[in-house]
Amino acid sequence: MEIRSTVKVADRQALERVLRATGFFNDEELSVALELVSERLAEGEGSHYRFLVAEEGGRVVGYACWGPILGTLASVDLYWIAVDPAEQGKGVGKALLEAAEAQIAGEGRSRVYIETSSRAQYVPTRAFYLRCGYTIVAELEDFYAPGDGKVMFLKVLHPTAQA
Amino acid sequence: MEIRSTVKVADRQALERVLRATGFFNDEELSVALELVSERLAEGEGSHYRFLVAEEGGRVVGYACWGPILGTLASVDLYWIAVDPAEQGKGVGKALLEAAEAQIAGEGRSRVYIETSSRAQYVPTRAFYLRCGYTIVAELEDFYAPGDGKVMFLKVLHPTAQA
Repeated sequence: MEIRSTVKVADRQALERVLRATGFFNDEELSVALELVSERLAEGEGSHYRFLVAEEGGRVVGYACWGPILGTLASVDLYWIAVDPAEQGKGVGKALLEAAEAQIAGEGRSRVYIETSSRAQYVPTRAFYLRCGYTIVAELEDFYAPGDGKVMFLKVLHPTAQA
Repeated sequence: MEIRSTVKVADRQALERVLRATGFFNDEELSVALELVSERLAEGEGSHYRFLVAEEGGRVVGYACWGPILGTLASVDLYWIAVDPAEQGKGVGKALLEAAEAQIAGEGRSRVYIETSSRAQYVPTRAFYLRCGYTIVAELEDFYAPGDGKVMFLKVLHPTAQA
């Protein structure tokens, strides 16, 4: 598996395929996720959004997307992380997350926040973040909808950058 | 005092004056706040952002700005509420907040979230929200900076709209 930080035009379609394959995202979420890809393609390195794309034998199998939180000194939101279901269980997600954390730390940021749903569908997602060293710092009940709360995770990194 | 939901071009300067007068917002925050005003002026009623502007004798003395949270059924973020310090203590903030809540409920949304800093400077701000019926649902320590956490408030409204 290879992980790259450049985003290519062809990735848009590949990432849509990955996102749809997971079955986790509705049309609105899908559209937001792909907008960020388009924004990154249009703005390049100047974009607010950082990406890592995982490839296996030249085929896109997953990605992570994050960005600094405006108005904070060192906080980052991990917006999206998705892995092709056919490639799950092989450490792709963990490798993406660790590579993202290394890049975040390298940019001098140390607090990685991830938000996810409290619904049963997300039990494996939440278990994954806990396994990767994240802790639950807040739960907002009924945030998304009645019975569908928001769970907020945090991992504090040790910055490797010199300011 | 009058409260209106239309935003005028002249408000941009007046709201900048109010925001600066409070002494609570740095240049980055000011610029974000004014961008939302510009966005609202450009997009009009189609804007994602809702505003209420308070006037006293034709002079702008405060405002509130909020918007629905994407991907949620009924949650709203109250982004900004500011009152000219010369007019504080007269119930302008409370009137703005209650008018905003009435409009939010009228649009069928019921969960109003407000985020503020845990710093000592915001003790009066936090006391204001508690007085207005908000409760603290989460605290993220060191979110903005070391020693500067994020405090999240929530008020659950009773929707008045028929879907």
